[in-house]
Amino acid sequence: MSDVELKLLPPQGKGHTSAARIADDWYIACRSPALKPGRKQAIELLGTPIALYRGTDGAPGALLDRCPHRNVPLTTGAVVGAELQCGYHGWRFDRTGECTRVPGLCGEAAHRGRRVPSFATAERDGFVWVYATPDVEPAREPYAFPHLGEAGWHAVYDVVEADATVHAVAENALDVPHTAFLHGGLFRNDSDDRQTIEVVVRRWHDRIEAQYIGEARPEGLVGRILAPGGGEVEHYDRFILPGITEVEYKLSDRSHMVVSSALTPIRDFHTRLFTVVSFKLPLPAWLVKLVVKPIARRIFGQDKAMLALQRQSIERFGGERFVSTELDALGPGILRLLRNAERGHRAPMDAPEVKRFEMQV
Amino acid sequence: MSDVELKLLPPQGKGHTSAARIADDWYIACRSPALKPGRKQAIELLGTPIALYRGTDGAPGALLDRCPHRNVPLTTGAVVGAELQCGYHGWRFDRTGECTRVPGLCGEAAHRGRRVPSFATAERDGFVWVYATPDVEPAREPYAFPHLGEAGWHAVYDVVEADATVHAVAENALDVPHTAFLHGGLFRNDSDDRQTIEVVVRRWHDRIEAQYIGEARPEGLVGRILAPGGGEVEHYDRFILPGITEVEYKLSDRSHMVVSSALTPIRDFHTRLFTVVSFKLPLPAWLVKLVVKPIARRIFGQDKAMLALQRQSIERFGGERFVSTELDALGPGILRLLRNAERGHRAPMDAPEVKRFEMQV
Amino acid sequence: MSDVELKLLPPQGKGHTSAARIADDWYIACRSPALKPGRKQAIELLGTPIALYRGTDGAPGALLDRCPHRNVPLTTGAVVGAELQCGYHGWRFDRTGECTRVPGLCGEAAHRGRRVPSFATAERDGFVWVYATPDVEPAREPYAFPHLGEAGWHAVYDVVEADATVHAVAENALDVPHTAFLHGGLFRNDSDDRQTIEVVVRRWHDRIEAQYIGEARPEGLVGRILAPGGGEVEHYDRFILPGITEVEYKLSDRSHMVVSSALTPIRDFHTRLFTVVSFKLPLPAWLVKLVVKPIARRIFGQDKAMLALQRQSIERFGGERFVSTELDALGPGILRLLRNAERGHRAPMDAPEVKRFEMQV
Repeated sequence: MSDVELKLLPPQGKGHTSAARIADDWYIACRSPALKPGRKQAIELLGTPIALYRGTDGAPGALLDRCPHRNVPLTTGAVVGAELQCGYHGWRFDRTGECTRVPGLCGEAAHRGRRVPSFATAERDGFVWVYATPDVEPAREPYAFPHLGEAGWHAVYDVVEADATVHAVAENALDVPHTAFLHGGLFRNDSDDRQTIEVVVRRWHDRIEAQYIGEARPEGLVGRILAPGGGEVEHYDRFILPGITEVEYKLSDRSHMVVSSALTPIRDFHTRLFTVVSFKLPLPAWLVKLVVKPIARRIFGQDKAMLALQRQSIERFGGERFVSTELDALGPGILRLLRNAERGHRAPMDAPEVKRFEMQV
Repeated sequence: MSDVELKLLPPQGKGHTSAARIADDWYIACRSPALKPGRKQAIELLGTPIALYRGTDGAPGALLDRCPHRNVPLTTGAVVGAELQCGYHGWRFDRTGECTRVPGLCGEAAHRGRRVPSFATAERDGFVWVYATPDVEPAREPYAFPHLGEAGWHAVYDVVEADATVHAVAENALDVPHTAFLHGGLFRNDSDDRQTIEVVVRRWHDRIEAQYIGEARPEGLVGRILAPGGGEVEHYDRFILPGITEVEYKLSDRSHMVVSSALTPIRDFHTRLFTVVSFKLPLPAWLVKLVVKPIARRIFGQDKAMLALQRQSIERFGGERFVSTELDALGPGILRLLRNAERGHRAPMDAPEVKRFEMQV
Repeated sequence: MSDVELKLLPPQGKGHTSAARIADDWYIACRSPALKPGRKQAIELLGTPIALYRGTDGAPGALLDRCPHRNVPLTTGAVVGAELQCGYHGWRFDRTGECTRVPGLCGEAAHRGRRVPSFATAERDGFVWVYATPDVEPAREPYAFPHLGEAGWHAVYDVVEADATVHAVAENALDVPHTAFLHGGLFRNDSDDRQTIEVVVRRWHDRIEAQYIGEARPEGLVGRILAPGGGEVEHYDRFILPGITEVEYKLSDRSHMVVSSALTPIRDFHTRLFTVVSFKLPLPAWLVKLVVKPIARRIFGQDKAMLALQRQSIERFGGERFVSTELDALGPGILRLLRNAERGHRAPMDAPEVKRFEMQV
């Protein structure tokens, strides 16, 4: 069979995909108000089922969602005080994963073999974060969303998801050239009369950034809202490990916006995006809030559909086989950061790696 | 990838499950009245498709459900006398699997290569039993349901199924501690004020039994029906190869009940239960019959849902990883019986292995 | 596991199936009018996704349906003149697969790494044909349907599909014995009072043919339409590489019919049939056209259902395990032709291999 297959198609980086599994870092599990005291929910992080709960004392806990006894999900059960109780035989566990009760047993409940792996949790910026490696001290802090709570700044929140890897979602979120096609009219338009701008790409050990120099305000709907008066835009696109994207537009001190998304890898090919749009604009905040979400959802809906088609195509062909040009300013660099982090390599660099090129927009 | 996976999760007895395939034994295929003369049905036993039919002479037959000619199911066809005829080209087979007709062929129909594997069948206690190894003389007799037809005894029949291994279903059916949680109120209740009873476990070469000594009548609904006057209960839970469970409650010579289930492994993770509730009670039989089935179905519904969650969880984690305590009186012993029988080891023992412990109920 | 499995079932040519992948030949993609100028459609051929389109100049093109840039299907995009443009970033490709535009790029678009594999196309007999190996000069011509456009001849067209290999569909289409069972009443009937006829089978390097000698007009509905006056039939069944079936009935110069089907392997177990019924009959053409399609659809519906059951059974048992008799006049020979062609062996033979036997119909 394999010979015939080779004749039909060019060799296919079989099995090669951009899925990355960075376990020694924090991911958002849910928005804080979505987890009420005394309640639990089954979540998934990097393909691992986790029982997330909030004790009646208000603090969150996260345990591997499998009872060590007969392997049913702990989320079959109930929160009892600060502990989680399995729904099958009533075994009970505290936030550290220690077994505290085996109903019917005459001896001691606590026992090395009856522990369940537990994940560190944190609450920050109104989100519940979970550290993806169980039973360890977290190696770092969760990401802090920029400008939250700063004077003159406002914020809009949203949660969406896509059937794609963190890499595919991040590359798409930070990619300029596709906007003229996939989102034709919203951002930019395809035309033969394009302007040439300069792009500077800087890569550090834990982030990569593209700066767009000389770009006039985009002609599409988004540009007109952001800068009704036109002008030149300061525009940065950034990726920060393990899965943060930032798109920053600045026209002046009075007109400044950052769209930050924290990407949570639910599974290899399914990503949840927790997005915060922070803005300071010469427009009433209520008006911006009214308009931003429907536009963002429309743009994201087009991206989501394309990402799903991309993923299906990759699955069908048995792997990715990308050809990049310099226009792919960040994608290949993001993959390099993810691969290095997956292997535990995140040593700080003395200075960023810098690359420059020209682009027609 | 495997390194990253190991960091995320504790090592996972990958692929280890309690699925057992004991082929040299009898399983119930269906209740006798469900197979009418001249009719066939497609069944599955240990993952093997079988064409079960009853000839117009009244006797059942069981053939591998694949025509040797072009591999379509024989159940595509029709029963002709005592034989089964394929629906594609009309090849015909008798109960031994011999080919008796190849329409259009000028030569002889019977031919070594045209045989279809045939399974021994038996009818007993109103059930059609099939021996799971084809083309051999059965090594033993089917199980006999206790007390059927005895004076003063009555019986209720039911057929249910669960997405779980025979082992998981049997352990669940014979497990005491989960009743206070999963079936809270129906049997027993969780409480801090429990009584301590003695449990004696006896294992023979083909069965294992737990005797519960000193147990007061359970407070739940089932206990009150069984023994309205209270008192101490004689209680045995039994597993018999290849997949029989018996739960026996006795209060006196006038109040005695056995719930027997014959578990048929349809596939590794799908089991059908043919249950007979035999009873002699100081209550009108019609009343017991009226009440028993809805209660049993409600209890089994809760078990079935939990077994399905257990199975999904095991599938997700790539295998079972159970931690047992002495309260798991029968589960580990049942698995040992199944594994031994799978390897053909069922030599009688001189005396049973006995184990004793205390339990709080 | 494997030991137990072997006990349960006879050894199973595991993985052996009649799926064949002959890439160096032509297959029908669609009927010509179904592909309008300026439109594209996603098709599949031997499991390979292909973007089929017709330029605004009227000529068809066929490219591998995966953009080399980010691997989304090219069918996400649009036809622009004679080229196809990707829907994600707007990359554009001509019919040879050359990249002609990368929007935003300051340099040259054309580049070796940005090519997409392209497939030869042809239009003939009102069908669009695609050659299944990309980027090569076709080794041969597409099949020509017989009698199309000849004086006195008429034609009916149909397109159907089946969940089965090309081999299973071809064998079924050219098999005589099943007609008395699966299509009882339409062609032939099962009876103990059958006539004996002679069958001559001739195999060439690229085709195999069975000639049926001495067959009286079949008694079923189809026979009565074909030859209302009875008589003896000239009957040929033919298979021609890579997947053509012909069933030819001739009673006289005035009564002659050929049912030709070109079988396109969409995937290993899914085949599309492009059928042309060519006929010259002593009946008004409009009447034949009115009657032929419903009858053919009814017969094919029965075959399709049986082929799906066959395929499911083969999947369940992990492979095919056929036992043939001489009545299987063409099936084994067709498989031999397919296997030889798969390995590239199609050297012309000096004379056909001939085989004779008797059959009762």
